[in-house]
Amino acid sequence: MEPDFSPLAELLGDDFDGYLISADGSDSNQLYLSGFDAPDPYTTLYTPEGTHLLVSTLEYGRAKKESRADTVSRLSDYDYREKFAEYGPLVGKAKVVAAFLADHDVTSLAVPADFPLGTADALRNEDISVEAETDDVLTTIRAVKSDEEVEYIHDAQDANEASMAAAERLIRAADVDDDGMLVYEGEPLTSERVKEEIEVTLLRHGCALDETIVAGGADAADPHNRGSGPLYANEAIIVDIFPRDKATKYNGDMTRTFVKGEPTDEVREWFDLTEEAFHAALDAVEPGATGEDVHNAVCDVYEAAGENTLRADQSAETGFIHSTGHGVGLDVHELPRVSLNGEELKPGHVITIEPGLYDPDVGGVRIEDMVVVTEDGYENLTDYRVELVVE
Amino acid sequence: MEPDFSPLAELLGDDFDGYLISADGSDSNQLYLSGFDAPDPYTTLYTPEGTHLLVSTLEYGRAKKESRADTVSRLSDYDYREKFAEYGPLVGKAKVVAAFLADHDVTSLAVPADFPLGTADALRNEDISVEAETDDVLTTIRAVKSDEEVEYIHDAQDANEASMAAAERLIRAADVDDDGMLVYEGEPLTSERVKEEIEVTLLRHGCALDETIVAGGADAADPHNRGSGPLYANEAIIVDIFPRDKATKYNGDMTRTFVKGEPTDEVREWFDLTEEAFHAALDAVEPGATGEDVHNAVCDVYEAAGENTLRADQSAETGFIHSTGHGVGLDVHELPRVSLNGEELKPGHVITIEPGLYDPDVGGVRIEDMVVVTEDGYENLTDYRVELVVE
Repeated sequence: MEPDFSPLAELLGDDFDGYLISADGSDSNQLYLSGFDAPDPYTTLYTPEGTHLLVSTLEYGRAKKESRADTVSRLSDYDYREKFAEYGPLVGKAKVVAAFLADHDVTSLAVPADFPLGTADALRNEDISVEAETDDVLTTIRAVKSDEEVEYIHDAQDANEASMAAAERLIRAADVDDDGMLVYEGEPLTSERVKEEIEVTLLRHGCALDETIVAGGADAADPHNRGSGPLYANEAIIVDIFPRDKATKYNGDMTRTFVKGEPTDEVREWFDLTEEAFHAALDAVEPGATGEDVHNAVCDVYEAAGENTLRADQSAETGFIHSTGHGVGLDVHELPRVSLNGEELKPGHVITIEPGLYDPDVGGVRIEDMVVVTEDGYENLTDYRVELVVE
Repeated sequence: MEPDFSPLAELLGDDFDGYLISADGSDSNQLYLSGFDAPDPYTTLYTPEGTHLLVSTLEYGRAKKESRADTVSRLSDYDYREKFAEYGPLVGKAKVVAAFLADHDVTSLAVPADFPLGTADALRNEDISVEAETDDVLTTIRAVKSDEEVEYIHDAQDANEASMAAAERLIRAADVDDDGMLVYEGEPLTSERVKEEIEVTLLRHGCALDETIVAGGADAADPHNRGSGPLYANEAIIVDIFPRDKATKYNGDMTRTFVKGEPTDEVREWFDLTEEAFHAALDAVEPGATGEDVHNAVCDVYEAAGENTLRADQSAETGFIHSTGHGVGLDVHELPRVSLNGEELKPGHVITIEPGLYDPDVGGVRIEDMVVVTEDGYENLTDYRVELVVE
């Protein structure tokens, strides 16, 4: 199903002739607008009349076949080589893009806020007006998923569940040595070993990831610490997996916290409280509620129990020190925000719900599912039980 | 070893107070300048007196520990939350950055050409002068590798060799059915299956990759086609692997072309010619030669044999239709260029040499090694034999 780009046409209105992206296919707005993926930067022009691509000769054949563009042009159609030689890569390219824009009667552009400054200023020198749009129009369009996109995300989450099960299996199968260290097949069971198991499982399911988190003890107390070294019994191990399906490019996201053996009273208490906050957040998810409402539901639970939050103290370094969640799609972090200033939720938004508590003296605890907002609430795209103790 | 940032100080000269990057850690310039990696955008200010980071509270502790910055500040030190609420994310953030810059006596900035336009224009509205530098200063600094960086790249290439061997092993072990299709363990041997083997091998060696190319037949004739579906005997299969070491973030890159069974005369001829072009390019690698010289050595061999090249015809879609190579480091494609307009080679440059020929009617052939330029020539970082036929 073709996305609804009418908000882009509205943004252009009478002020702008077109919307331009200059980026490679790792930029999700570029991928989404062009329907094309290439490893080097290429240019996509959207106008209410059509979408036009400007690519290198190398990408030309594939762009004609695979992209959703109405027309595809080559850099060489505009004497890129000569202009590069005369003016250098930046100005040379800008002169090529200006000629391409002239062919489409475009002299004024809206561009994404992350459009490259060098290209923008070089186009301005070619008498093209260029303005960064600050309304996140494309990412707002992308936030609402079609049924097909939800299916892609669901598939990535299915793979995620398989890899989480593989991680849990290793922790379950491990022995505990006299120092409390986990031992698997005669070797210390490390964060790295568990991550390898996760990644191999994901590969077998067509997914890849750059990073995954398997963090125990004090490592787990820093939400962005990926974890390293041996894992230990009786302390909380956070496993946070966010794979990308290699074919569809859509992501999944899930977190579980495991203790092999006996959790401390404080970790057990934190886990129960976090599970309560998790359900309070889910209960708040429905169209018309905002991401901020959902975030507040979590903060309310934590603060009522005497835990610190970033809402109460914006320089807090322990307690609940991140957002409740985020949108998931072509990017693993995208709109809507599920945090302070979070937008109104709409059917088709896919978001994570991931409360957690952190303190280097205790460790870290986090529970995360991914859900899609529906007409009357939400559907949970995650099917993995929430249980702390792994025996 | 600390990189030599003096070219950055020279760029600033009397014109600019500082150099600013606003990007997440997937931006290699950001990673290199800050010595810090985080998944959400953060801000690094370089001045000749010191390097200063501005990060979220969540990253503060880790940034203090891990980055190479002299000082680390938090968004909350500059009332980010209040400014976000009053002005929105873009302008709110710009006001925070402006206050951070004021604390370091900076009112004029040079920034990379890909600096986000929205942030640049918002800073200009705060009376900060912002100019994109067009000399690729940081990427030029990055192009010259320290011994330690060369070792990281060599390690990634070692992993690469193991994964290439795994791919070759599958092709060797495969049977050929009556239609010429390769069959492995009773299943068709597909591009996808070989890629999975490559990726699992890389994971076991601490490397990851987003993409890899295993392309046979007509797929191989498009240099950017990743390949899909069953592989066949007697046709050329291009295997191009560019893994990233997950710990160091440095890349490797290598390509081999295999035929299971009997190559056609034309593929055999192309392979021999490509191997000749490959050696001609290597012979041209030395300090003082340019990337263009090396590229010309390849084009000379091909053109003398009557093959088409992009040098001879910039809209060519068959023949030698890409560059001879590229720099490799934190990015798998970086400076120097080994192509038309390629820069002068310097000791410490790590480059690929990867001539190839392509035609949908014949298939594709490519041979690629990665070398480091030394004081008196080059050292090949690749140790994998060049042989077409896999029996």
